[in-house]
Amino acid sequence: MKHNYLNNLPLDEAKRIYKEHLSSVGFEGETETVRVTDACGRVIKNAAYAVICSPHYNASAMDGIAVNSEITYSASERTPVTLTPDKYVVVDTGDPIPENCDAVIMVEDLIDRENGNYDIITAHHPWQNVRQVGEDICMGDMIAPSGTTLTPSLCGALLAGGITEIEVYKKPLVGIIPTGDEIVEPTSNPEKGHIIEFNSTVFKGMLDDFSAESKVYPITPDKKDLIKQAVERALEECDIVLVSAGSSAGRDDYTSEIISSLGTVLVHGIAIKPGKPAVIGEAKGKPVIGLPGYPVSAIVIMDEIVSEVCSVYYSKSEPKRETVKAVLSKKIVSSLKYSEYVRVSLGRINGTLIASPLARGAGVITSFTKSDGVLVVPQNCEGIESGEEVEIRLHKSLCEIENTLIITGSHDPLIDEVSDFLAKSGAPFRVCSTHVGSMGAIYAVRDGLAHMGGIHLLDTESGEYNKSYVEKYLPDGKGVTVKGVGRVQGLMVKKGNPLGIKEFMDTQSVRYVNRQRGAGTRILCDYLIDKYGLDKDRINGYTNEEFTHTAVAALIAAGNADAGLGIYSAAKMYDLDFIPICNETYEFLVAKDELENPMVKAFLDVLYSEEFKNRLKKMGGYTE
Amino acid sequence: MKHNYLNNLPLDEAKRIYKEHLSSVGFEGETETVRVTDACGRVIKNAAYAVICSPHYNASAMDGIAVNSEITYSASERTPVTLTPDKYVVVDTGDPIPENCDAVIMVEDLIDRENGNYDIITAHHPWQNVRQVGEDICMGDMIAPSGTTLTPSLCGALLAGGITEIEVYKKPLVGIIPTGDEIVEPTSNPEKGHIIEFNSTVFKGMLDDFSAESKVYPITPDKKDLIKQAVERALEECDIVLVSAGSSAGRDDYTSEIISSLGTVLVHGIAIKPGKPAVIGEAKGKPVIGLPGYPVSAIVIMDEIVSEVCSVYYSKSEPKRETVKAVLSKKIVSSLKYSEYVRVSLGRINGTLIASPLARGAGVITSFTKSDGVLVVPQNCEGIESGEEVEIRLHKSLCEIENTLIITGSHDPLIDEVSDFLAKSGAPFRVCSTHVGSMGAIYAVRDGLAHMGGIHLLDTESGEYNKSYVEKYLPDGKGVTVKGVGRVQGLMVKKGNPLGIKEFMDTQSVRYVNRQRGAGTRILCDYLIDKYGLDKDRINGYTNEEFTHTAVAALIAAGNADAGLGIYSAAKMYDLDFIPICNETYEFLVAKDELENPMVKAFLDVLYSEEFKNRLKKMGGYTE
Repeated sequence: MKHNYLNNLPLDEAKRIYKEHLSSVGFEGETETVRVTDACGRVIKNAAYAVICSPHYNASAMDGIAVNSEITYSASERTPVTLTPDKYVVVDTGDPIPENCDAVIMVEDLIDRENGNYDIITAHHPWQNVRQVGEDICMGDMIAPSGTTLTPSLCGALLAGGITEIEVYKKPLVGIIPTGDEIVEPTSNPEKGHIIEFNSTVFKGMLDDFSAESKVYPITPDKKDLIKQAVERALEECDIVLVSAGSSAGRDDYTSEIISSLGTVLVHGIAIKPGKPAVIGEAKGKPVIGLPGYPVSAIVIMDEIVSEVCSVYYSKSEPKRETVKAVLSKKIVSSLKYSEYVRVSLGRINGTLIASPLARGAGVITSFTKSDGVLVVPQNCEGIESGEEVEIRLHKSLCEIENTLIITGSHDPLIDEVSDFLAKSGAPFRVCSTHVGSMGAIYAVRDGLAHMGGIHLLDTESGEYNKSYVEKYLPDGKGVTVKGVGRVQGLMVKKGNPLGIKEFMDTQSVRYVNRQRGAGTRILCDYLIDKYGLDKDRINGYTNEEFTHTAVAALIAAGNADAGLGIYSAAKMYDLDFIPICNETYEFLVAKDELENPMVKAFLDVLYSEEFKNRLKKMGGYTE
Repeated sequence: MKHNYLNNLPLDEAKRIYKEHLSSVGFEGETETVRVTDACGRVIKNAAYAVICSPHYNASAMDGIAVNSEITYSASERTPVTLTPDKYVVVDTGDPIPENCDAVIMVEDLIDRENGNYDIITAHHPWQNVRQVGEDICMGDMIAPSGTTLTPSLCGALLAGGITEIEVYKKPLVGIIPTGDEIVEPTSNPEKGHIIEFNSTVFKGMLDDFSAESKVYPITPDKKDLIKQAVERALEECDIVLVSAGSSAGRDDYTSEIISSLGTVLVHGIAIKPGKPAVIGEAKGKPVIGLPGYPVSAIVIMDEIVSEVCSVYYSKSEPKRETVKAVLSKKIVSSLKYSEYVRVSLGRINGTLIASPLARGAGVITSFTKSDGVLVVPQNCEGIESGEEVEIRLHKSLCEIENTLIITGSHDPLIDEVSDFLAKSGAPFRVCSTHVGSMGAIYAVRDGLAHMGGIHLLDTESGEYNKSYVEKYLPDGKGVTVKGVGRVQGLMVKKGNPLGIKEFMDTQSVRYVNRQRGAGTRILCDYLIDKYGLDKDRINGYTNEEFTHTAVAALIAAGNADAGLGIYSAAKMYDLDFIPICNETYEFLVAKDELENPMVKAFLDVLYSEEFKNRLKKMGGYTE
């Protein structure tokens, strides 16, 4: 079995090599002339200079009368000046000032007399209430330097300066070639082994942000000659070519070889994670980039390499990235081999901006949808301690992040449902919830990492929920428990219960799927093991840990496991049989300082509303 | 002459009334179903739930071989396990895990033996190197709540979750009706009294930012029935109607009356400046808004009212505004009658973010093109002192602002030319220059408000330039003078010099245009007045002050004045005659702490380059 190893070039070095090469082959954007009225968002090639002044004539700044200011000099309350109709011209805002006039008296300052005469009681200096020629823009002034992206107001200024057409860069057309035998067009019913091709949609959206247009080619199977033909066609039709997947050094990875045969591979393998197996090349004077198949890896390469190529096209400097300082919520361990890109969610708790690392798997697209930013851990760094200040590159705007309710704790689909209710009612904030289990909620609230979190912690001695845990871990009253819901926990098993599972004891003889340590459901599991005198080590799958009820249900439905503990609504969602075991109290632990936070209050208001109770009824398995 | 007064309703009150009314008439966006592959940037109507898991089967996470993990348990370096071909299946990344297998061994971990056998030396636990069903997304999970704007990665997640089509809001179509007898289509040669219609282009660009589409109707003259017809047509074709100009209460202002006749005017006149004379109305269940004719006023109403109407259309909360704290560079006086919107430029000098107020005229579109943000002075506030911390709503991204070289001081077109050179060479920063005269440069550098500024200050006693001023005003060495250019100052007069002006003395008998106090050219003017024993009060136009050489040239070319002091390049630009008076030393005063600032260095490198000297030669009037 063939296995080639890739380079491991530092990112900056890879970029430098690429930019130098693209410059040496004369890669640069073409331009076109467009009407300024249609030029918003476009990038101008050369500096734009006003060809006329604005205003281009002396214009009245008010509705009133135009006069020669000299005749007003003696006017005062005690010595009004009377203006006869031969001394003034009525003007509206924007009207030209007639010859021999150099001031405008506002209509509000005119005292009506008979025969069209007006009295005035204030002197006016020359050019008072007149917008003189060039007040806004002077002919010859530079309105925007080369390479400016035109904003709405810049387009207005260009038009005001008499520019009607302008040379802008054509948007680069980027060809996207999805490859892979297993890749299929988007569907709701993929066959086993088929992978839905969604990367090209992600790329298309990102390219739009890079001011590029995109053309997605049909999916090409893993045949070297077919991929090569597709690349050749794209090279003819596009300015930049992206080959999706096949960028590594495996059996069916042809991208590097194909680019080599058509042009030059400059870098194959970058010292970043995710994103390592990227191919950076050029053919026929155009950039050709091999993107990794894993979506998260590909997104990193898009963001680091393809965005930079678009900047080179526009002769712009490297795109600036908005950053913010935040405090890391938990330790990150990183390899010295790579610079690592860790997606984080951000939230302001009690005045401190907290960055919480998200899942790091390269295949987890939701780690990007949930992320507010990315923490780049440098190559020479082994990790970063919890509590350290870090710099986060933002994916979302800071004001959106500031208006986020952070819920960290036990998973329940009702949190998403409340979020949706809030969104539908136009709430001025969003909810970010992460599933770290009930103990995770206690630690997060204790350590100031969350506004609130769901908990359902069984005190196995008293049989009570939550109270003793909160008293033990938050003795200083830093967290307050508020009413949540009652819910049914039980064993989820395959539809029809083919293995005839009747009670928790039966899990000893089947393949079990567990929840992670600290989850309330895990504590329930351990309690039941004790209660029935079972042996953890004899439960097949005890170490197979999942983070949500739906993940456990999904594995049972898929046949990866035969039984697992979870809530009724998850079993119902997956059409599983459900063996009730207990009713539990699912409450919310709220940081004491956040009890009056309007976001927390709005969340609880929805939760307690009649309308929401109806929604819970439909989901099933909840009591008040 | 008719004059009606407008309401003066606080903005929040106007918004509240409008939102309540729009809700009462059932104003809400229509929806359509689109393919998710084309849905990036669109707003979803309802929450989106995954219909399949992702992965939807157990998939290999690596290239390697799939095995039943049990057979690997005993493997170690000392006791390798040999896998015969019947014990494994070769898999690539993404391949399904065959029945009876539950782990994958990476190709890197295989030791090749003969006959297709492999040795392994590490145990593998169940599901190692396998992406289990639902690892990324579980069927039934909410991928995005109602009202979410789809990002590229969210589109990817929807497709991964088996969603191929989705209900999104149609983009609202906004009809823009430019009105006014004096308004003409964009041109480079407008007649006197004609005003170029550029507001609709500005609105179009802003509407794009509000996720709205726009349709610009032909310019309608100030005829009530014609404007009414245009509004009726737009009400049939569009979701929201904007009438540009005619929103006040003057003679030819019909917008309010027309909306009244077709529906309801809710507010006419808002207590904000600029932006007061806005009309907020509704007809046929659709918002109709009368925008002021002055571009800056209209932009404020677009930003405050029209953006909010678009949010209501999308059932979203009011758009969030990115803000930043900055230190105000100079005192602002504000009226108690209005909430005032002051455009500011921002820059970081010596670690402090400084907000410098820009021109406040409602007609000055360039105050928006140059602005980095806006300071909203509340209605009940008389003003804000220099040095106070203020909150600025950002128009540009903070990282762009942070990478800005602030040049404050004497005007010379060469500053723009250097900026353009820098932009063309892909410099990773922009230049923001404001013209406050040479003394302004000294104060700005002294007070930490600028990185550098141009100065040409004549010491009338020694005849030297700059040195004595810097020694006097910056005795602590806070500013350092660096080489700039030599340039010719002189009198600019109309082409052919019809008044026969020969020397500065002759300005006494003509209409003069002066520069502002603190400008080096103003100091030269005062020096010449002294030298020739002239009387300031007898110079007609001595108090007529302009801020740039080109503004002075523009007024002479327009006939507003007969003579003014300025540099040769400005006279040349306006085809004026030029009577040389002296050669002066134009230098740059750099804040001492900023001498090593890479932006300052890059600016000076361009200025001193051979290539740039050629550009100066073409402009004329410069020496080294």
